[in-house]
Amino acid sequence: MKPQFEQRLATLRKRLLESGQDALLIFSPDNLRYLFNYSGEAAYGIVTQTGLYLITDYRFLEQAQHECVNEQIATEVICRDRDRQTLAQAIAAVLSDERALHIMYEAEHISVAMWQSIAAGLPELLFTPALAMLEAQRKIKDEWEVEQIRQAAAIADQALAILLPQLKLGVSEREMALELDYQMQRLGSEGVSFTTILGFGARSALPHCIPSARPLQQGDLIVIDFGAVVNGYRSDMTRSFVAGKADARQQAMFDTVHAAQSAALASLHAGLPASEADAAAGAILNASEFASYAGKGLGHGLGIKLHEQPFMGPHCHEVLQANYVVTVEPGIYIPGYGGLRLEDDVRITPQAYECLTHAAKIFEVEI
Amino acid sequence: MKPQFEQRLATLRKRLLESGQDALLIFSPDNLRYLFNYSGEAAYGIVTQTGLYLITDYRFLEQAQHECVNEQIATEVICRDRDRQTLAQAIAAVLSDERALHIMYEAEHISVAMWQSIAAGLPELLFTPALAMLEAQRKIKDEWEVEQIRQAAAIADQALAILLPQLKLGVSEREMALELDYQMQRLGSEGVSFTTILGFGARSALPHCIPSARPLQQGDLIVIDFGAVVNGYRSDMTRSFVAGKADARQQAMFDTVHAAQSAALASLHAGLPASEADAAAGAILNASEFASYAGKGLGHGLGIKLHEQPFMGPHCHEVLQANYVVTVEPGIYIPGYGGLRLEDDVRITPQAYECLTHAAKIFEVEI
Repeated sequence: MKPQFEQRLATLRKRLLESGQDALLIFSPDNLRYLFNYSGEAAYGIVTQTGLYLITDYRFLEQAQHECVNEQIATEVICRDRDRQTLAQAIAAVLSDERALHIMYEAEHISVAMWQSIAAGLPELLFTPALAMLEAQRKIKDEWEVEQIRQAAAIADQALAILLPQLKLGVSEREMALELDYQMQRLGSEGVSFTTILGFGARSALPHCIPSARPLQQGDLIVIDFGAVVNGYRSDMTRSFVAGKADARQQAMFDTVHAAQSAALASLHAGLPASEADAAAGAILNASEFASYAGKGLGHGLGIKLHEQPFMGPHCHEVLQANYVVTVEPGIYIPGYGGLRLEDDVRITPQAYECLTHAAKIFEVEI
Repeated sequence: MKPQFEQRLATLRKRLLESGQDALLIFSPDNLRYLFNYSGEAAYGIVTQTGLYLITDYRFLEQAQHECVNEQIATEVICRDRDRQTLAQAIAAVLSDERALHIMYEAEHISVAMWQSIAAGLPELLFTPALAMLEAQRKIKDEWEVEQIRQAAAIADQALAILLPQLKLGVSEREMALELDYQMQRLGSEGVSFTTILGFGARSALPHCIPSARPLQQGDLIVIDFGAVVNGYRSDMTRSFVAGKADARQQAMFDTVHAAQSAALASLHAGLPASEADAAAGAILNASEFASYAGKGLGHGLGIKLHEQPFMGPHCHEVLQANYVVTVEPGIYIPGYGGLRLEDDVRITPQAYECLTHAAKIFEVEI
């Protein structure tokens, strides 16, 4: 199983042709990774119907040649001397050789200042902004991509299993987050998918809780939201616990979120409007005593980027397709009291879904 | 000792006034941290002569109120409902209340696509791009900022001291990088300053070596480039070692880089053109047998961002000023053989410099 670079490129070229465009200028590091297998910095990509170019400089030349020129991908790597050639000049040289005139550029991934300096150096070309062109393509994952997320999710599952017995009275959020991050990397994760969210007690209600020195106390709600990275692809999972025995309100929160997530998962299949998956969870949350504390939005696409298309909320016009990989993460957040969220990563299949995260949804943990 | 938010704001307002501008739109997360004490995401700042506004949404409201509204800083935090109000509308509401017409915006920190959507919603305003406006101001650090970098550097010093005895025959680059990252965070670092560079043998010549499974062997050159983060401020230090006894060539490399760094450090003082500090190191590198393998550029500013103004290279027109904090990092990189770099963080003083990194520059380590 290999990344399908040829197919990715063919799809993009077809769309360029259909739009009457000669070339696409790529500025997004995520899209350079997707299309060129390039994981470094300070590089710019150009795709035409016959050519594939990566402009970088001496600092990343060796890495670019290693990553972008091999049996799977045949990029022409251009090493620019930044003291002698502007980026506009380097781009102009490629486009002139290619006789390209109608140029799309990733307007979402380049700053106004940088684009002004490039465009000023290329007055004879006709530019059109490309909006979410590769992002739309990236929504459907190939088998290799799904496998990377599956492996990242498996690492997260294992790391959580190592962490759980360490949740003891008095440990701090920060200690536990550090231990989780350490274990994921020891198990092969390339860094972490994002800054681990780990909150005890009332702090579990903060959607982006940054781990603090707060010690774990008996009866605390505990939220842990984290992920691993494999070959640039991310996982993203949340589990929620209670330290010791749950009281009636905590148990009702857990049961509500669990039922909401189960309903959303059960609804999933290719062809389903994403807003209906959101509504399946929403129906249960909104019928509960916690309706006014329900989180907004059901989940998001997942891949090279942590939050990518499609975004699944009530106002989303997306229809789910086979091999989308998305999170399903309903939650309840009661300010000053605590929060509870369950999040899994799933691949959409023609009839249902495949769950990529497998950690058990236990609630009570002995501390 | 506290961050000097009032003074930062006064300096910016004075410059706005001098340029005849009524407001600055701030899009850079680093600049929001510098001016508003805000460390979250999804926020936009507006500064006028009398007002200070942060526009965010419900996800970051609590964090923004906590960080940006206190005895040191009195921001008006605006919680935008993204389903009902565009960013342009939220900005328009503030600027209209403030009767602001001439608006600067951070053109280096907003995408073409996003700026087009904002500007289209504000047709009556007159926009001017602000280029490196706050970045220029951030070059001079206040005492509190220097203290954060000093603490980050101290954490890095301690973590390296813990790591060195673990450099043993057969350990991998990845294991050692993970251990270093773990120790820094255990000692209080907020994550790591950047992805730790740690290379053995020929891989030490890669300027951005990503730690691999390569095991440590007798006689290997070892390069370790890493840093800690305290209150958002970063350190950045490199030490180079040889596993066991250095041979003549390795010792000559070390002596050359050490002499080049010493010469550059000895030249430092407020009023010195940065290119002359670069030349002080360059004179020694270029007179050595390793001239053709010398790295380009002496160092860079350091603060909220890892690489920030001033950049110290041969073509740099910067004159060093008191309380600039910069790296001094000459190196030799021999492809296929190995590299060697020494890097310290220093604060420029009126007469000389204060070194913030203190790890000993030993070369031979027993493995």
